[in-house]
Amino acid sequence: MSPVSDAKVLAAVHDELKSYATGENGVAVIETAGGVLSPSPSGSSQADLYRPLRLPVLLVGDHQLGGIGTTISAWESLHIRGYDVQSVALFAEGRYDNHSYLRDYFAERDIHAFSIPPPPGRASDVREDAEAVQRYYEHTSSTEDVTRFTHRFLEAHEQRISNLKAMPAEADKAIWHPFMQHRERSKDTIVAMDSAYGDYFQTYTTKQDAQNSSSAENTLLKPAFDGSASWWTQGLGHGNPQLALTAAHAAGRYGHVMFAGAVHEPALTLAQTMIEKMGNPRLSKVFYSDNGSTGMEVAVKMALRAATVRNGWNADDEVLILGLKNSYHGDTIGTMDLSEPSIYNKKVEWYSGRGHWLDFPQVKMRKGQWVVERPEDWEDAQKSSGQGRAFTSLDAVFDFQNRSEDHAYYMQYCKGVLATLEKEGKKIGALILEPILLGAGGMMFADPLFQRCLVESVRTYSSKAQSNQNEDTRAGMPVIFDEVFTGLYRLGRFSAASFLGVHPDIVVNAKLLTGGLLPLCTTTASQSIFEAFLSDDKSDALLHGHSYTAHAVGCAVANKSLDIMMKMDRDGTWKSFKNDWMQANNESTTPAERGAGAWSMWSSTFVKAISHRSNVDYVFALGSVLAISLKDPAGASYASTAATGVRDKLFAGSPGEDWVIHSRVLGNVLYLMAATTTKKETLEVIEDKVFTALE
Amino acid sequence: MSPVSDAKVLAAVHDELKSYATGENGVAVIETAGGVLSPSPSGSSQADLYRPLRLPVLLVGDHQLGGIGTTISAWESLHIRGYDVQSVALFAEGRYDNHSYLRDYFAERDIHAFSIPPPPGRASDVREDAEAVQRYYEHTSSTEDVTRFTHRFLEAHEQRISNLKAMPAEADKAIWHPFMQHRERSKDTIVAMDSAYGDYFQTYTTKQDAQNSSSAENTLLKPAFDGSASWWTQGLGHGNPQLALTAAHAAGRYGHVMFAGAVHEPALTLAQTMIEKMGNPRLSKVFYSDNGSTGMEVAVKMALRAATVRNGWNADDEVLILGLKNSYHGDTIGTMDLSEPSIYNKKVEWYSGRGHWLDFPQVKMRKGQWVVERPEDWEDAQKSSGQGRAFTSLDAVFDFQNRSEDHAYYMQYCKGVLATLEKEGKKIGALILEPILLGAGGMMFADPLFQRCLVESVRTYSSKAQSNQNEDTRAGMPVIFDEVFTGLYRLGRFSAASFLGVHPDIVVNAKLLTGGLLPLCTTTASQSIFEAFLSDDKSDALLHGHSYTAHAVGCAVANKSLDIMMKMDRDGTWKSFKNDWMQANNESTTPAERGAGAWSMWSSTFVKAISHRSNVDYVFALGSVLAISLKDPAGASYASTAATGVRDKLFAGSPGEDWVIHSRVLGNVLYLMAATTTKKETLEVIEDKVFTALE
Repeated sequence: MSPVSDAKVLAAVHDELKSYATGENGVAVIETAGGVLSPSPSGSSQADLYRPLRLPVLLVGDHQLGGIGTTISAWESLHIRGYDVQSVALFAEGRYDNHSYLRDYFAERDIHAFSIPPPPGRASDVREDAEAVQRYYEHTSSTEDVTRFTHRFLEAHEQRISNLKAMPAEADKAIWHPFMQHRERSKDTIVAMDSAYGDYFQTYTTKQDAQNSSSAENTLLKPAFDGSASWWTQGLGHGNPQLALTAAHAAGRYGHVMFAGAVHEPALTLAQTMIEKMGNPRLSKVFYSDNGSTGMEVAVKMALRAATVRNGWNADDEVLILGLKNSYHGDTIGTMDLSEPSIYNKKVEWYSGRGHWLDFPQVKMRKGQWVVERPEDWEDAQKSSGQGRAFTSLDAVFDFQNRSEDHAYYMQYCKGVLATLEKEGKKIGALILEPILLGAGGMMFADPLFQRCLVESVRTYSSKAQSNQNEDTRAGMPVIFDEVFTGLYRLGRFSAASFLGVHPDIVVNAKLLTGGLLPLCTTTASQSIFEAFLSDDKSDALLHGHSYTAHAVGCAVANKSLDIMMKMDRDGTWKSFKNDWMQANNESTTPAERGAGAWSMWSSTFVKAISHRSNVDYVFALGSVLAISLKDPAGASYASTAATGVRDKLFAGSPGEDWVIHSRVLGNVLYLMAATTTKKETLEVIEDKVFTALE
Repeated sequence: MSPVSDAKVLAAVHDELKSYATGENGVAVIETAGGVLSPSPSGSSQADLYRPLRLPVLLVGDHQLGGIGTTISAWESLHIRGYDVQSVALFAEGRYDNHSYLRDYFAERDIHAFSIPPPPGRASDVREDAEAVQRYYEHTSSTEDVTRFTHRFLEAHEQRISNLKAMPAEADKAIWHPFMQHRERSKDTIVAMDSAYGDYFQTYTTKQDAQNSSSAENTLLKPAFDGSASWWTQGLGHGNPQLALTAAHAAGRYGHVMFAGAVHEPALTLAQTMIEKMGNPRLSKVFYSDNGSTGMEVAVKMALRAATVRNGWNADDEVLILGLKNSYHGDTIGTMDLSEPSIYNKKVEWYSGRGHWLDFPQVKMRKGQWVVERPEDWEDAQKSSGQGRAFTSLDAVFDFQNRSEDHAYYMQYCKGVLATLEKEGKKIGALILEPILLGAGGMMFADPLFQRCLVESVRTYSSKAQSNQNEDTRAGMPVIFDEVFTGLYRLGRFSAASFLGVHPDIVVNAKLLTGGLLPLCTTTASQSIFEAFLSDDKSDALLHGHSYTAHAVGCAVANKSLDIMMKMDRDGTWKSFKNDWMQANNESTTPAERGAGAWSMWSSTFVKAISHRSNVDYVFALGSVLAISLKDPAGASYASTAATGVRDKLFAGSPGEDWVIHSRVLGNVLYLMAATTTKKETLEVIEDKVFTALE
């Protein structure tokens, strides 16, 4: 007989507790089996088993010799798993007096520790023994300590609920939210997060609360699938105890140690991993910063300087970048300048777009058919009207060997662009791309072959290109890949550049880097870029560095996260997803057409099915990303509201549903994103919900 | 009899262990008393007591009922304190078979768990008992498990040392360091940080190692006082277990939860604390980002937009900022634009200074005398030649009531500047100041009265100033205070603005915000600034937000750090420092002259003494900051090397010293910075070392 799974135990407990949610049935107490980290039937620990419920805890301490230490350690094990330990109970045993030490210890941590008299010794006479125990219970349950405990425990629960209920209004007062027009905000639109675990938030909204209290659905907290992967960061599940422990270990070993001229093990290991696993022979040096924006600031400083030095440009020359329209590289003013004028930057006083941006062909599934659509203004005989160039499978799009005609056309186009720019006397200091998916600019799937051709063009075109060097060392125009969103297994691979089969000079990674725990960014550069800053003059150096550069906690968590994700990759954790797409590819593709083995966590059948829904314009899926572009009579734009209706439906859910879906939109695009650890079963339920929510 | 202090126990153990450092005396094993968190004589835990030594650990597990849980919890308690637990030993007790569960559990965590047979039962005969025990020991110590353990434990130690020795060279290969001309870098200049605790790094350098191995000083790791407070971030000591636990709790409760339209308890609490404790009635909304640079980007976007809206400027108008020369606000290109052209930015292709910057009077102690020196190019009858205007004490500088003449002069000057700018048709969108101390731009102490006058001037001057409103609501030109370095007790107070007695519209805080653990930044704004972004048009919103905005780990750690520092402030932890300065102030100042109660952790006697050193130009100290400006025959500049000699002397130390000082320089300024928890005794030793290192 196989052991009972955690999910089964949890479901049984959850169902039993549900009837206590209203409080009318009194209070339920769950006594766990054994100690805090004693194994559950499946072998996981008690604390991990029950964590999704995050019930308030009464910890029963140890009054025996050594009990001070074991009680505090048990508390720490609960604490680092996100539990609220509200009280600690102990026998008032005179010999070691653990209870008075622990009372003070926990009082300092706002935890109420109390003691009860030890039980009577066993009497030889059975009836006498029963009576003694009876007397003991009667006496003990009426002691002041126990009465006060019961009172405080219930009070803390009330307090927790009233705090939660007040949070949206309080946040409306004190918080300036990111990316939001606050005229649209009220306490009813703010989602309070009580906590999160695995794929789910535990959410509270005043709106939902008002609706529920008048219905049978009387649970205060609503689990919601984290459908934006917490703004594209989430990789290994919320409340992951391994990441929590790793963060704490680094905090305990180092805190933060200044990184100027220094090194520590987590930073060194991470740098070596990034250089090695990227599979790009150009890369040799890692620069640390705190987020994608700062990492891109570093990248652009590196690239423009290298280009200026290589080309012998003057300090006053205006240097531009070459990029794609709808790119997005960050919120700092310098990274905003990397994008063409748009709604994001038009009211930022110091914004000034400093580049040349190209339209590009896009990959889409329309009514069950993969197509590559070229921009409307391309004068292109090959361009299919409306539906674009059709492909038998997603894999075939990545099969560059069988796309020589497209390749030739794209190369001609790219070289034409470069020639025009040169004729106009424009100095281009870098090519900057988000490989495969353009994220915040609208969630678009660029034809990977076109991006590859752009890189090939700038490498071979430049008059300064050293033709005597091989592909891996040739300098030319620096190529920056912004893999902040697309790298590190978001699309199923460590490196998004690997889909294109080219080697950028600078790669920026963040978001998933820490598995979804805290901010950290790496800018990894080639030796040639690095050397452009070497001189005897200090002012030639890259004078950049944030105070928490390479903070040990972030680097250690990143190492742990990458280890786990690389192991999942090796161990075939995503095999069933891959098989699904391989089968879909094989059914419609000849072996010669098969490309890179493109796959997604979203099932191929589901993606096809929703592409046929009447309000869907097109869809695509790759890795953990699913994007659904909805038809908007008013036209596609950032201000579109076509997708918000679906988003709201998914979050409202329907009566009787155990959980809902929290998602984000970008204009008329609704996207969903899984963690790398999300289970197929979970995604299948989401697929059903989404299919229903679409018309 | 008072209990033995941790320091005393530690010193005794350390001295004893020293003789084993060479390995010639064999291996020492320390057996701690009781469990991992059992109380030490002083009441702290065993794990905390021995943490400064961070010795490799053999954890003796528990083979009894419940022992799986207590063993793992004990390991977690060690792990979050930064220990390397290398092995776990257990009795192979058949009844519960804890050892086989634990062996697998720890193997997954790269920890070697092994078991030994349980000891024999006690025999009634004393001699028989002794023999049985003897046989047991003989047998057990030769079991394969025990032999392998000994071997692996020693091997791990060798491995640790060889890793450490390789680190500088490996870092030289893989790392691009912040703010460094890498031509000056080699493996011999890189400091490897094994770990850190309290005020100290545990450092290894190949250079020191080469010197030591040829001398009697044969310890591999050198403790070094973290004299730059890890780039101005450190507040509560490295490896602080409270912060580590808090970080882990937030990681366990939330991971990171997306903050768009959402709220969680740590972010809300922190926002409320910032608004309340700043003591500035203007402030009402907190915006989160990841570091000082991004927080200043947010601040400048806020201010320029508000100024444009308030003044009805056109979108194309060039808007500038008003600031002080030598200001520094960050490394992103937008924040670089806030500073005048300098060595930091002159080779950043996209830099363009967008402001008007003023020279300013500076506070210095020269040869025992506090002076305020006005800029050389001010046409100023009052200006003392060379020595500047003298003050009886530091406190008297802050006594604005008794400086009405200076006030009148400064106001006249500031209004003159504003009038000129207006005449030139320049549009000034914000006044931006680092209150009191200008940090990275050269560590300068601005006359606080002058900064106050600047704020007063822009508030009353602007033709758009609504004269019918009171001081706390009047809009006018937005005033941004960059308190990233100077706020949150770096200068002894929660708010650095409070020294000036003015209320900025926007305040940016970072660095000390998390007590020195990880990156987080708050930009706190007035209601009036917030309202400038309200409209029915989404594009009028502040479209800014990083993925990890308001990450729960950072906010929770910030709440804990602020709690601890505010408590220290209330409890009079810094009383002896304050008393020292109050006494110094009182001796030389009449009661009427006494100002804000300015004080420093660096003793007034020491500051005076070093101001007389022959190679010292001037000094100052405030809060935890000490700055020593050294005479440089070549003139003061960022490229000056006058201070590096002293820095190198402090880090090299002298034979027999237990620890050295790691410090940073800014041009010809050597500065030292304590954590808020640094002890007076420690600082006294440092003061001696510094006094000696100066000529």
